[in-house]
Amino acid sequence: MLTLPTYADVEQAARRLQGQAHRTPVLRSATADALLGAQLFFKCENFQRMGAFKFRGAYNALAQFSPEQKRAGVVTFSSGNHAQAIALSARLLGIPAAILMPLDAPQAKVDATRGYLGERGEVVLYDRYTQDREAMTAQLAAGRGMTPIPPYDHPHVMAGQGTAAKELFEETGPLDVLLVCLGGGGLLSGCALAARALAPKCKVYGVEPEAGNDGQQSLRSGAIVHIETPRTIADGAQTQHLGQYTFEVIRRDVDDIVTVTDAQLVDAMRFYAQRMKLVVEPTGCLSLAAAFHAGLDLRGQRVGVIVSGGNVDLARYAQLLTS
Amino acid sequence: MLTLPTYADVEQAARRLQGQAHRTPVLRSATADALLGAQLFFKCENFQRMGAFKFRGAYNALAQFSPEQKRAGVVTFSSGNHAQAIALSARLLGIPAAILMPLDAPQAKVDATRGYLGERGEVVLYDRYTQDREAMTAQLAAGRGMTPIPPYDHPHVMAGQGTAAKELFEETGPLDVLLVCLGGGGLLSGCALAARALAPKCKVYGVEPEAGNDGQQSLRSGAIVHIETPRTIADGAQTQHLGQYTFEVIRRDVDDIVTVTDAQLVDAMRFYAQRMKLVVEPTGCLSLAAAFHAGLDLRGQRVGVIVSGGNVDLARYAQLLTS
Repeated sequence: MLTLPTYADVEQAARRLQGQAHRTPVLRSATADALLGAQLFFKCENFQRMGAFKFRGAYNALAQFSPEQKRAGVVTFSSGNHAQAIALSARLLGIPAAILMPLDAPQAKVDATRGYLGERGEVVLYDRYTQDREAMTAQLAAGRGMTPIPPYDHPHVMAGQGTAAKELFEETGPLDVLLVCLGGGGLLSGCALAARALAPKCKVYGVEPEAGNDGQQSLRSGAIVHIETPRTIADGAQTQHLGQYTFEVIRRDVDDIVTVTDAQLVDAMRFYAQRMKLVVEPTGCLSLAAAFHAGLDLRGQRVGVIVSGGNVDLARYAQLLTS
Repeated sequence: MLTLPTYADVEQAARRLQGQAHRTPVLRSATADALLGAQLFFKCENFQRMGAFKFRGAYNALAQFSPEQKRAGVVTFSSGNHAQAIALSARLLGIPAAILMPLDAPQAKVDATRGYLGERGEVVLYDRYTQDREAMTAQLAAGRGMTPIPPYDHPHVMAGQGTAAKELFEETGPLDVLLVCLGGGGLLSGCALAARALAPKCKVYGVEPEAGNDGQQSLRSGAIVHIETPRTIADGAQTQHLGQYTFEVIRRDVDDIVTVTDAQLVDAMRFYAQRMKLVVEPTGCLSLAAAFHAGLDLRGQRVGVIVSGGNVDLARYAQLLTS
């Protein structure tokens, strides 16, 4: 039996995050509203600390460490936003941290993670072809007594991510539809908990890349479906499967999972830049791309759009804008 | 004798703009703060309607038209943000509008202006090599009784622009320094009026492109200096001289005018994209570029940064990001 997080956990996370996480702005777009005949409310987690919602879950998890856990530290593996979220949270809380990153990770990402880590944190590079990151994580956990915090499948992480939707509903009041980017399901499950509590009639949709629709398959088959690492520009959604905790919340509280293509993501990315003056990473474009392209009838609806993050290499970004 | 606008005019403009202009968010950047040892407050007019502060002044001017002026309409010439600001304001107020744009203006700008204009507005194209836009404007004013609204040298325009700084001070309280992008001086003069009223000790700096430092020369010589159209990527600051009204307010209420190079603008543009997830047009980068590069000692200071707009062609933007 898994003990799933509840909305009370989201509320407690919100208290822990007060003064630590940014209360990110909710922006509007007259152009998007006109194109869709709807009212869209964009929750801009690209303005969150370290550039993505991931800070919420990481900080909420680390803030609950016991004094002993705090002394021994945290270990995780990630080459993406979760690494930076753990690094920054650990520094703020004075917790030692070991972040495993592949030797061939972009230097900019390694540097950014090192930049967020304090003196008591380290990036541990591993060779992804000869070394097993899960075994190395287990080794660090056993040898140094470090607590592993996974990127999504953890009740404290999920509850932290849910504070994004909690803030959105507090600002907008009830919504008819909530669109949430979906990778491993931390954000979607947390936001669904908030939606069920604050706007019970709101339809909650997860949005995945078409190339990696394991979440959609899982929801429809009733069991977690594993896939090969999908080829998509949405690097934050290149997950192979949902988590055990996230799947249980998603299948209970989420209405459906829809998909969009990479071309549709680029279309949304250009819309964000041109019409809303926002830099949004490919994964963060999932929710708006679904509003435009997933065949949902949003006319007359009040629609929440969670913009998950804005961390994209500038050269890559420029290339996508002009592709 | 010119009758200069006062802070009371800025307050009245704020009332006219309520519910029409966005109250744009004030964003922070931990990275900028750390780099400069200061506290920066970014007033994000790139999120303003039509993508720049210009909406404030245009709407404030048109809202004060007499019934007769409203019937006859407004005329202006601009290939930039002022054109779109007048177009949108005229449509919202049901006022006919004629916007003169050069035949060789980028099609995207002509289309955007037409998009904002209602059915009662028209873009009038002219040949900049054979036709005199000022004579054509005068002709439309005389023939159709249209009221010309210039882009900056008008008390109502200046008062409207000042509402950006008014909102900033209301949100942040007194600041030590205010950095404002400077082209013709509408934004700078309006913001200086607000600063003098709301934060009398705040140092107010205008920021110009180095290649077009007519404002700096004017301030130092005590008379309006005219220059050739400067070569700079800051197209909104390619003005040849300050206005009569703007100069009088600037020389009374502005502490100094500093300059930055195009390379420094690109540096700031990249900072906005990478660290703050904001798309800012070259002219809008002037204020932050000055914080980084103009030799001002900002350590320990609370600094307001007016981000004037975000309207930049995406292909051009991508090119600048990777240059």
